[in-house]
Amino acid sequence: MSNNNKAHIYILSGGIGSRFWPKSRKQYPKQFIDILGLGKSLLQLTAERFTKIFGNENIYFITHKDYKPLIRQQIADIPEANILCEPARRNTAPCIAYAAFKLCQQDPEGIMIIVPSDHLILKEEEYISKISEAIEFVKNNESLLTLGIKPTRPDTGYGYIHYTQSADADIYPVVSFTEKPDKDTAQKYVNSGEYLWNAGMFIWKAKDIVDAFRNYEPEIYNIFEKGNDVYNTEDEAAYIDAVYQNSPDISIDYAILEKAGNVYTLPVDIGWSDLGTWNSLHDIYESKDQDKNALIAKHIYITDSENCMVSAPKNKLMVIKGLKDYIVVDDDDVLLIYPKKEEQEIKSVLKTLNGKTELEHFL
Amino acid sequence: MSNNNKAHIYILSGGIGSRFWPKSRKQYPKQFIDILGLGKSLLQLTAERFTKIFGNENIYFITHKDYKPLIRQQIADIPEANILCEPARRNTAPCIAYAAFKLCQQDPEGIMIIVPSDHLILKEEEYISKISEAIEFVKNNESLLTLGIKPTRPDTGYGYIHYTQSADADIYPVVSFTEKPDKDTAQKYVNSGEYLWNAGMFIWKAKDIVDAFRNYEPEIYNIFEKGNDVYNTEDEAAYIDAVYQNSPDISIDYAILEKAGNVYTLPVDIGWSDLGTWNSLHDIYESKDQDKNALIAKHIYITDSENCMVSAPKNKLMVIKGLKDYIVVDDDDVLLIYPKKEEQEIKSVLKTLNGKTELEHFL
Repeated sequence: MSNNNKAHIYILSGGIGSRFWPKSRKQYPKQFIDILGLGKSLLQLTAERFTKIFGNENIYFITHKDYKPLIRQQIADIPEANILCEPARRNTAPCIAYAAFKLCQQDPEGIMIIVPSDHLILKEEEYISKISEAIEFVKNNESLLTLGIKPTRPDTGYGYIHYTQSADADIYPVVSFTEKPDKDTAQKYVNSGEYLWNAGMFIWKAKDIVDAFRNYEPEIYNIFEKGNDVYNTEDEAAYIDAVYQNSPDISIDYAILEKAGNVYTLPVDIGWSDLGTWNSLHDIYESKDQDKNALIAKHIYITDSENCMVSAPKNKLMVIKGLKDYIVVDDDDVLLIYPKKEEQEIKSVLKTLNGKTELEHFL
Repeated sequence: MSNNNKAHIYILSGGIGSRFWPKSRKQYPKQFIDILGLGKSLLQLTAERFTKIFGNENIYFITHKDYKPLIRQQIADIPEANILCEPARRNTAPCIAYAAFKLCQQDPEGIMIIVPSDHLILKEEEYISKISEAIEFVKNNESLLTLGIKPTRPDTGYGYIHYTQSADADIYPVVSFTEKPDKDTAQKYVNSGEYLWNAGMFIWKAKDIVDAFRNYEPEIYNIFEKGNDVYNTEDEAAYIDAVYQNSPDISIDYAILEKAGNVYTLPVDIGWSDLGTWNSLHDIYESKDQDKNALIAKHIYITDSENCMVSAPKNKLMVIKGLKDYIVVDDDDVLLIYPKKEEQEIKSVLKTLNGKTELEHFL
């Protein structure tokens, strides 16, 4: 097979979206849910962005094996071979290594486009145009490219990419990555014009990322390198099942991007939100009422309330008075009423509840 | 038939309990609900208080005809003749007149005990003992007797009975009735020791209340007097269906008690609550948590919250943070989140929603 320089899209679909609980559940996480009420899940919206341009056969899903049935259910006509299953949760580095080795074995020059399954992108045309630009760049450069989102506010929930603008290019070398900064630092970053949000969207050639694993994360490299004889054979799944859990549990950012010298970024303005939390959904929700309430609810009577994020089933009547800056999510068997400013605590609430057997099915 | 001086219990079961929405719905109102989580509805608890003493055959239910099936479902072995059906809602005066004329036709000396179906009484023995005392009194006096609850707080939601204590009696003439007073007035009432709460529990002989209708509410008297030939015959229901809607829409308090000269009250301390509102349920709920939250919910994780009244289905997980003095009621297809202090608005919210066809089934 010679797919020289052909682009392969890998949609990372294994997250559990715990900050979006209770809409997002372990058994049915965020990417599979129609969070925006558009009639399509975030996963379906993500896949559609690419199938139009790249065709169905070049779209891959990397996911935890538990979610394979959900992907087959939501993505029509997906070849079974295009679902790469993680037998254990080990963050993004090993699953990207797995995909890279597998592709490299067939087509070392093959281009990988790696994207999250659960983000929102409003300016789709611009996005695809930037992806094409990125493809051209990595074709001709031994580089690891990350899209960088031009920041619109000093958000403390994101990682930032520090880059230096040079005069005659769209694509720039990355100086460094920094994790979630404090508010003041984030404000300095935004003011400087030299920082971008790291959205976890990567473009590179298969052989270039495999090289990077060899150089910067040899433990993962060794695990997947030993499988070179079985990738794309019937023995592949058994091999992955056997070795995958031995991999370090680490993100691609920590494992590779913060260490490699050939990391570049392409700044983009694509109407992006990671929809990471109820707050971020509130931020991007367009049809708020006059009191800045974002109401995803068919039947609702809300008074004396401001700046709330409400989500309810279609067949439910919500009567709410006097809430300011609250998240109210009714998801059939769970009701969450939580101050918006403290939503980062929801993760730890889930950890607390997780210890209780009788509550397991709510999580 | 000669049931001389035998007591007949009339349980008023036609209310719609709108202040207890959304647990209480038009199709299935408060008295039919197990609001306290005891495994029995308020109606069943009310009936049981009396069946023990007076037997099944002397318990009557006066209700809107729509609720007849609910009564038959909840009260085992109830003779069909013991359910008196109102074909229209006309408040308490006409339904009591109907019951009184019907009994009077068989047994003018028969004693009527009229009680609401949806109140809580904790001191049941004391209650029954006071009822017996009241029966003895009305047997020997042409009087209309109302139980008066000794007030424990300056509640502005109740009507008050003004009476004068005389030295050598348990039972006193009523000076006047006053409707819901303001806070200061209520406080003066409580301090004076001369006021009792009107709990809508009445004891009198059939002929005495019929006489009172003749004297003070002739319009109602005339309607029901014309039916004297058909009561307790197979023509009764057709007659009531034809004339009932012509009756004035008025309470027994306004129609009779505020006018009659032979009204007496027996002050009682029986652990009473009208359970009229979520606030009153919160007040009487015994096992509140350390932050004074009354939590009728099997699975609940509530933090940084005080003085809330929460009611949820057994199979629902509630996660709540930061609510103070709130009512949170999840009742399957309706969620109510409302400031406790403003709960009297709920009735008018329902009126607003009532105009919308698509919401009708939530009410």
